[in-house]
Order: sequence, then structure tokens, then C-alpha cells
Amino acid sequence: MTIRPIEIQRTTAKKQKPDQQQLGFGLHFTDHMFIMDYSLTNGWHQPRIVPYQPISMDPAAKVLHYGQTIFEGLKAYKTSDGRILLFRPEKNLHRLNNSGRRLGIPPLDEEAALDALQQLVAVDADWIPSEPGTSLYIRPFVIATQPALGVDPSAHYQFIIILSPVGSYYPEGVNPVKIYVESHYVRAVKGGLGEAKTAGNYASGLKAQEAAKEKGYSQVLWLDGVHRTYIEEVGSMNVFFKMDGTVYTPALNGSILDGITRGSIIQLLQKWGIPVVEKTISIEEIYEAGRKGTLEEAFGTGTAAVISPIGELNWQDNKLVIHEGRTGELSAKLYDTLTGIQSGKVEDPFQWMVEVETRKLDSSPLV
Amino acid sequence: MTIRPIEIQRTTAKKQKPDQQQLGFGLHFTDHMFIMDYSLTNGWHQPRIVPYQPISMDPAAKVLHYGQTIFEGLKAYKTSDGRILLFRPEKNLHRLNNSGRRLGIPPLDEEAALDALQQLVAVDADWIPSEPGTSLYIRPFVIATQPALGVDPSAHYQFIIILSPVGSYYPEGVNPVKIYVESHYVRAVKGGLGEAKTAGNYASGLKAQEAAKEKGYSQVLWLDGVHRTYIEEVGSMNVFFKMDGTVYTPALNGSILDGITRGSIIQLLQKWGIPVVEKTISIEEIYEAGRKGTLEEAFGTGTAAVISPIGELNWQDNKLVIHEGRTGELSAKLYDTLTGIQSGKVEDPFQWMVEVETRKLDSSPLV
Repeated sequence: MTIRPIEIQRTTAKKQKPDQQQLGFGLHFTDHMFIMDYSLTNGWHQPRIVPYQPISMDPAAKVLHYGQTIFEGLKAYKTSDGRILLFRPEKNLHRLNNSGRRLGIPPLDEEAALDALQQLVAVDADWIPSEPGTSLYIRPFVIATQPALGVDPSAHYQFIIILSPVGSYYPEGVNPVKIYVESHYVRAVKGGLGEAKTAGNYASGLKAQEAAKEKGYSQVLWLDGVHRTYIEEVGSMNVFFKMDGTVYTPALNGSILDGITRGSIIQLLQKWGIPVVEKTISIEEIYEAGRKGTLEEAFGTGTAAVISPIGELNWQDNKLVIHEGRTGELSAKLYDTLTGIQSGKVEDPFQWMVEVETRKLDSSPLV
Repeated sequence: MTIRPIEIQRTTAKKQKPDQQQLGFGLHFTDHMFIMDYSLTNGWHQPRIVPYQPISMDPAAKVLHYGQTIFEGLKAYKTSDGRILLFRPEKNLHRLNNSGRRLGIPPLDEEAALDALQQLVAVDADWIPSEPGTSLYIRPFVIATQPALGVDPSAHYQFIIILSPVGSYYPEGVNPVKIYVESHYVRAVKGGLGEAKTAGNYASGLKAQEAAKEKGYSQVLWLDGVHRTYIEEVGSMNVFFKMDGTVYTPALNGSILDGITRGSIIQLLQKWGIPVVEKTISIEEIYEAGRKGTLEEAFGTGTAAVISPIGELNWQDNKLVIHEGRTGELSAKLYDTLTGIQSGKVEDPFQWMVEVETRKLDSSPLV
């Protein structure tokens, strides 16, 4: 494959960088962004890195009305010896295309998209924070931009990548979170969009999340939309339960996101010889294990939080405290190992990390 | 309530108007648009009518990532004596707020929003087409504009109204359409967003719609996401079936849109003494009536198409031809009556129509 050269227009007004101790999540954006356009006649064309700036959008753009959009989230890490590492970026770009298929969005050349992503990270390499727990969050996304109100797939799209230096997703850090088991609202249902990383799934959760917060819970645990019994995800993460020495996670069923952290956790557990099972899990089963004392740990997994231990569930006003509300040993080991691999401090047995070549940039055409 | 004065900035470069015979749907936009901003500190503020123009949006705006957006659709009609009529606009603005409640979007003052809508229509009154079947489609919508990637409700919003002169939604006109009964994809499920007019519901349907089109069908009939048995909507319309002299439509259940045309059809039928029943309807029941010969007519209802007769259903490769594939008498009478009321040609027994006062504008401040 020939990777088309990316035009790079550097900013002349570099922004002041935020305090690394107080980054928060997705609040600050770097000096540059990547954009590429799609039209029916030209396909994907004109890849370019430009100063971070507002996009000009027709108010009739389909993304604003019919939610035809997909996104990804991944992170770049700076190692202590100054290298820049990405965590399994090819998986994200592959999933972006899978989501696109569900939303009727034309596929990207994954290799070219990865090259663009790497070049953008290299251009803004000085934005990658170095404090423990920090990283550069990368948000690739595609939006439908055709100004037309008919309900059908757009003729024009933009593929954009923006970068945000981030701290931990949860201000609490890796402390256990309290989770509300949602019985009223539903995130997604089989046959819907649940498997795709697309705006509508998150829109659906905003209200439930808000209601849970009012009750003192940081996230919701989603049950399936058909039986309201089977566990799907927690907030915007996949979820795992350790019961009687075995780790369980809901099997992919079409309404659950095929998480890249989820897949990596499964590989790590298998390597460690810890039994791990993907299956349909009912909420009743978890409570039953809690009553019997065989529920040892529970945690959410995702790019933003990596591992988020669950200290308490509340299902229909029945509270279930897990591991005395403290972080479990396995949760801690998984967090340390995964963040260790990501930051280059721990050996990477699976060759998950991809190093960003910053030198390559010197030969790029500057505009 | 005090209606805040709306600042009006008129365009200096009026666009050429499209051919009224070839308007299509939602392809052309008028000279002006309405915008109002929301912030946590100022609430809804700075209502203004400005020349139609692209909006400047941060690429991290929440609407693009998490689909926090709601919309409405209604129409303005020009009568033969030059008056401008809106069809039940207060219903649309009320529903917009209902949708907003589900999406965590702060409510609009409905009276002020209606005033804004009327002023905008008055400013662009010369865009309202007069050919039979044409109208001015009005699209009010709210988008979450805060540039932040955390999954929680936005702190900033914009309420925008755009206008589009339209022909019939279906190029076929009021001829019956062929509908594919969708067994794989699901539009919405109880506990999800189905009841709200929001982007995610439409995103979900794009793929199904595309697949149906490939098979030669213009729209899909959605079944419920739980049992895949009960009828919900058809494409982006509500649906009615006339069986053995009685008209049936699916009861509102939380995943069906509370259509304004739907409600108006029910009122008209009641006035005419035709029995009309809102209930749970299975697809099997429709096919059974088809076999017995008691299925007399079927039609979709919505703002865009008004009444869209259904000439054929295809459920799991079983075709069911309705009323010999021709428009039924009741469908035709409903279409003629409703479009007659809307265009001011037929008496309006329910006082549905709201006249836009164009004179009022003369006293508005011009900027």
C-alpha cells in the first residue's frame, strides 16, 4: 500500500500546556489535529495535519441530526527513556471500520490511518505528559457532514483525530467505585448499535449516569434490554467478575463493545494460568456468589480508566459490597501489569506496544 | 412571560430559490437561521436570526462524540390567499422539551421558542413554496457544544432552527410504498431512546434502511427489540392498520415516538366516528388478517410524508399485498383532509393551524 503524504501545517501560536497534576480527562487539547475528507467521487482524500481549530459545519450536517458518526479512544505514553508508545492502535482502527460498517460509513485504509495517527502524535509529542498515571488520549472519529435532512447515509464525511493530555479518568484514581445496577434505562439491545462505538450508545446512558450520581454511585451497570437480567457493561467499560478462582466476563453478543482492554485482560489472565470464561452472566448469579462468599473481585476495563475496581453494587436497593470495598489483588496486579506495559516499565510479552517514530517526521513536507 | 427581543441580522446576499417542481426533501436551505446559546451561568441567552451559515464547532464538541442532541420537524404552508400557517407547532416544541428531558438537555421556554420560530418563518416567508404538495420544512434542534470528552451532559448548548423548502418526502408521491419487516436490526427498545426524537434512533436505522432498499423496499417496519414480534414504527413514521372496519395503531410504550401526525389522525378518525384503537399489535396478527381478508388498509404517518399508504409488506420472505397494492379510500381521505387543513383549503375543526403574523416583524430591531 502506498501511504499518501500528509500535508503538515504547523501552528504559529503554540498553546500553554496545562498543569500535569490537574489534567482531568478530555478537557485540554493539543496544538494540532488531523483531518481527511470523503466524498463519493474522490473517496477519502486530502489528509492533513493542521493547527487545532474549530471545524466549520453546515447546520444541516447529518451527524447533528441523525448521529451518523463513529469514534475510537486510545492512548500514547512517554517512557522514562523518552520513547513514545501506543497500545495496540491497529486494533482501534480495525474496530473503527467495524463500527463504520454498522453505521454505513465508508471504510478507512487502516494502515494509512495508523500512519496519520502516528504522525500527529509525533508533531505534538511535547504534549505527552510524563507524570505517573498520565498519558495522551487519542480520539479518532468520523462524522457525516453532508447538509441534507433525508434519513439516509451521508455522501460526505470527515475523519478527524484530536489529542488530549489526560490524568486518570476517575479523580479517585484506582480506588474502588460504587456502581448502580440499572433496571430502568437500557444502553443497547441486540440488533441495535451496542457493538459499535457510536454516539447514540453514549447519549442513551447520560440520563442513567446522572440518576446514579444523584444516588451516590459513579457509574451504572447495564443489564440486557431483553430480559433485564444479563450483565452487559459498566458505564463505558467492559466488566469482569472473579468468582471462586475463575474470572468471568460477559460474552460478546452483539450489544456489548468488543473492548481492546477487555481482550488484553483475557490474554494476560490466560498467560498467568488463571481460568477466564466468557459467558452470559446474570446479575442474580453475581448476588448469589456474593451471598455464598465466592465473589472475590469485580472490575471494569477500558482505555480511559484501564482497570476500575468495583467496591459495591446496588441492584434494586440491595447493596452488595465486594472485597470489603477495597481493591482486590488481581485487579491491582492487572492494573500494574497493563499500565506497566503501556508505560514501557514492564516487559511486553505480546508485542502490544507500537513505538511512534518521531524521526520520520523530518522528511515530511512542511507547508 | 416576557419574550426577549430577537436580534435580526439580515443577509446581504439572497440565494437563488430552487425550482419548486424539483425541491426534493431537505436539500435546499433558506437565507436565514435562528440561533440561541445556553451556558450553565447564563441559561438560554442571545436569541438571534442571522444569515444561514456554517456553524463553528470545536472538534471535541460533545454532540459529535456522544450524540447529545434532539430535534423536531414541522411544516409551514402558504395558503392561496397568502397567509402562512403552521401545523400544531406548540406540540413540536413541547415534544422537543420531552426529548430533552431524556437526553439531559436543559428545557427551552416553549412560548419564546415558538415566537422565534414564527419570526424566522416570517423573515424567510418568500421561501415558502406554493406548488401543490410543497411546504417549508422547519427543523428546530439542540446540540451539545461543550468541548470535553468525559461522558456526561454538556455545559453548553445551541438551539438552532433551519428552514428548507420541500416537495413530497417520497418522490413517488402518495402512491403506496413497499415495506420490509425488519427481523435483524432493532431501532429502539423500552428503556432506551425510542420515545425521544434524537440522533441515535436514526443512526440505528440507516443500515436496515439501506438493506431494505437493496431488496427493493422503500422503508422498514420496526418490530420491538424484546420479542421481535410487536409492531413499533415504519421507517421514521408511526403506522396504522385498518382491519375489519377498525383502525389500529401501536400503543405508546416508551420506545415509539409520540407522533403529532399520529395524534391528529386519531382525533380525525374519532370525529368521523371510525373506531380507532391504540394497542399492542403483533406482526402475526397483521398477516393473519391479511390471510382472512380483513386487512383493509395500512399507512404510515409523519410530518415529512403526512400519510404514506403501504401497498406491500415482506416479513421473512412472506409477501403480503395490502388493498391490491393501491391507496385505500381511508388513507386517501386522511391525506386529503390533513393536507387540506394544513394548506388552509379545508376547514380546521380542531384549531390546529397557527397563523404566522408577518406584520409583527416590522417593529423588530434590525441590526
